[in-house]
Amino acid sequence: MSNTLPRGAAPIRVALLGCGTVGTEVVRLIEEQSKDLTARIGAPLEIVGIAVRRPDKHPDIKASLLTTDAQSLVDGDADIVVEVIGGIDPVKGLLVDALRSGKSVVSANKALLAEEGGLLHAAAAESGADLYYEAAVAGAIPILRPLRESMVGDRITRVLGIVNGTTNYILSRMDETGSSFSEALAEATDLGYAEADPTADVDGFDAAAKAAILAALAFHTPVTTDDVYREGISAVTSGDFASARDMGCTIKLLSICERVSDPDNPSEDAVSARVYPAMIPRTHPLASVGDAFNAVFVEAEAAGPLMFYGKGAGGDPTASAVLGDLVAVARNKVATTTGGGVSTYAALPIRPMGKTPTRYHVSLDVSDKAGVLAAVATEFARNDVSISTVRQEGRGDEATLVLVTHTAADEALAATVEQLHASEYVRAVVSVMRVEGKDS
Amino acid sequence: MSNTLPRGAAPIRVALLGCGTVGTEVVRLIEEQSKDLTARIGAPLEIVGIAVRRPDKHPDIKASLLTTDAQSLVDGDADIVVEVIGGIDPVKGLLVDALRSGKSVVSANKALLAEEGGLLHAAAAESGADLYYEAAVAGAIPILRPLRESMVGDRITRVLGIVNGTTNYILSRMDETGSSFSEALAEATDLGYAEADPTADVDGFDAAAKAAILAALAFHTPVTTDDVYREGISAVTSGDFASARDMGCTIKLLSICERVSDPDNPSEDAVSARVYPAMIPRTHPLASVGDAFNAVFVEAEAAGPLMFYGKGAGGDPTASAVLGDLVAVARNKVATTTGGGVSTYAALPIRPMGKTPTRYHVSLDVSDKAGVLAAVATEFARNDVSISTVRQEGRGDEATLVLVTHTAADEALAATVEQLHASEYVRAVVSVMRVEGKDS
Repeated sequence: MSNTLPRGAAPIRVALLGCGTVGTEVVRLIEEQSKDLTARIGAPLEIVGIAVRRPDKHPDIKASLLTTDAQSLVDGDADIVVEVIGGIDPVKGLLVDALRSGKSVVSANKALLAEEGGLLHAAAAESGADLYYEAAVAGAIPILRPLRESMVGDRITRVLGIVNGTTNYILSRMDETGSSFSEALAEATDLGYAEADPTADVDGFDAAAKAAILAALAFHTPVTTDDVYREGISAVTSGDFASARDMGCTIKLLSICERVSDPDNPSEDAVSARVYPAMIPRTHPLASVGDAFNAVFVEAEAAGPLMFYGKGAGGDPTASAVLGDLVAVARNKVATTTGGGVSTYAALPIRPMGKTPTRYHVSLDVSDKAGVLAAVATEFARNDVSISTVRQEGRGDEATLVLVTHTAADEALAATVEQLHASEYVRAVVSVMRVEGKDS
Repeated sequence: MSNTLPRGAAPIRVALLGCGTVGTEVVRLIEEQSKDLTARIGAPLEIVGIAVRRPDKHPDIKASLLTTDAQSLVDGDADIVVEVIGGIDPVKGLLVDALRSGKSVVSANKALLAEEGGLLHAAAAESGADLYYEAAVAGAIPILRPLRESMVGDRITRVLGIVNGTTNYILSRMDETGSSFSEALAEATDLGYAEADPTADVDGFDAAAKAAILAALAFHTPVTTDDVYREGISAVTSGDFASARDMGCTIKLLSICERVSDPDNPSEDAVSARVYPAMIPRTHPLASVGDAFNAVFVEAEAAGPLMFYGKGAGGDPTASAVLGDLVAVARNKVATTTGGGVSTYAALPIRPMGKTPTRYHVSLDVSDKAGVLAAVATEFARNDVSISTVRQEGRGDEATLVLVTHTAADEALAATVEQLHASEYVRAVVSVMRVEGKDS
């Protein structure tokens, strides 16, 4: 259990691409904890260069380290490249070059990994470099390494994640205070939880990128952002929350990665990856994940249910995840080895959303005519959707019909809702929301 | 992202020591998932021998694999030894021999790792073998690898674990139903959650071994079972739960590993490792961990709070953790490398329980005399313990005084309680329980 540092062990040379909130924290942690990190790695870390857009904006960093030429760092003699710039271009080219030249890469870039993970992993495998990106999903929460390594002997069946802090803050506030989406968004913006242009968060793009990364690792299959079905939260109303409460549920934006049967070949597996707001029972461990926290719920055949919970964003938590990867990769450099790669051997087909089994909660304003229930039930039956529960509330002008279905193909459920809109018995479709959790 | 299996890759040879509930599951998973495991590892796993006490008790296993001679497997030509026997002897000698001969070891043996982790890690480091034991703490929950690898760039300040399912089941039942300890224990025994001799669980020995393992990894310091202060749950009463409820708390058996200041040298860190039942606020993420589930709450400087939740025991969940380690170690064998070792470079001193800062909740039956509160407050002040809240309930014969202290050295709190027992104003010390969570 001893760890004697070889005297004068050669430092591990680190190039940093980007130096915003996360990068600044990474630099600070490397400097402040240098003694501990050296002991844990078996060699000191040395920052050999930091690529930034505006060197004059970084007065606290030694000027000799700063450069605007990221490519020179990638082409230089660093052992490890840490990327915290974000976005696809020009980062993609930089990281491919770094990996091809044998430099290990630590990245926090979910968009790039979700879109070009295959390309990057291939470049890493080619030269025997490491590629880690724990910070790309759920900030400080260790979830990718557990999926890549701890659970690699098990068969994962489902991953349900709350992986976007902004939308979780908004939905938590709507749930707690009864406020509207726009009120809760304004509050999130004031508090700095939402960006000036909240599209990436609110419309589910961020959660979809993370779903692609989670699904690829969980199911050993190539999954990119384009494979992920996506709906955002801007259409969620306080009425939806009232309906959820009546059901003993709350509403969360879920990134769902599921092993399902292949519609063309029911004895084979397929992967479903999707992001949308859904009702989940308040008794589900994810229901109590409030504020801007993140959590990932994993179900595996032998392990059973697992949950990982923590801070999903912010400079410090993200930097913690980057540092963890950096230390692991640096240890590998000292041992002149690499960690376990990522395999996509299973290459499961992606099941399209329409064919994916889901459940709907539908709330209808109905007219006060005889035969309403029969008429509505007929629409469901026509699409082969079976109803789990139905509840009629109020009478006369105020009558509301609340239905929860059993599991059916999403396209059958969507078609039913479409037909209900046109029904003479239905005055308004008040709320339509998918329901996650076990079908009863 | 591809993973092409080299044709005819030499199998990784696995010897299994022990074949009870967990071992049987390990064998089943290796056989059932052999195609997937081969793809993930890059070579097939081959079980070359299984050491058992009674070969005739294993009719489902090929007889040629079974042996009563574990030493022969350890001395043989296996690449990896998987140990699921448990206990210190003779396993210690077997695993040291295996590691010294360069065989990597995967173990689920918390008692051995807690007591002899240093010896085993030294043997592993000597020959360059891997030593992993995820299954030893919190069953299927990936917690040791996240501590060893994901969080290795951060500074962990505290680990709070519910790591014993038996006691968590008992305390959850006492909380839900108001039953006594012995009633809840009887129920746990009936359901198979408690063993015929429940001492190891109920008296906190199991949780203490796990605390030692967690503390060693979190603080890079040698910590053994003997360093862990330990109290069990058999003295917890339904009155304690009533007091907890009044405080908005519940009671959990916690394994607590904390970075504290060294009493002899306040500018230096020390480690406190301890196990006892304590009140925690119902709003704490650990409070809702019910039944026989386990959870580990980790606080780190940069990452903030994290929680890991799942099944802590049982054949399948434990086998899932063993398999994860086995695949990781087998991948390393294929790559002719080893994973990151465990370092104890920090070698922090252990802070004894008496010097550890804790908080107490004390409930007293007091006599109906004037000056009771002053007399009781004087006992606390005499030991330099400051009181956070005090509440008087009832009058006359039924008067109860409920006090919660601020943080103070545990020995000062214990001395105060001792003196209260002797006070003429105190008719009975009804409940004494430590309180975890932030001091207000």
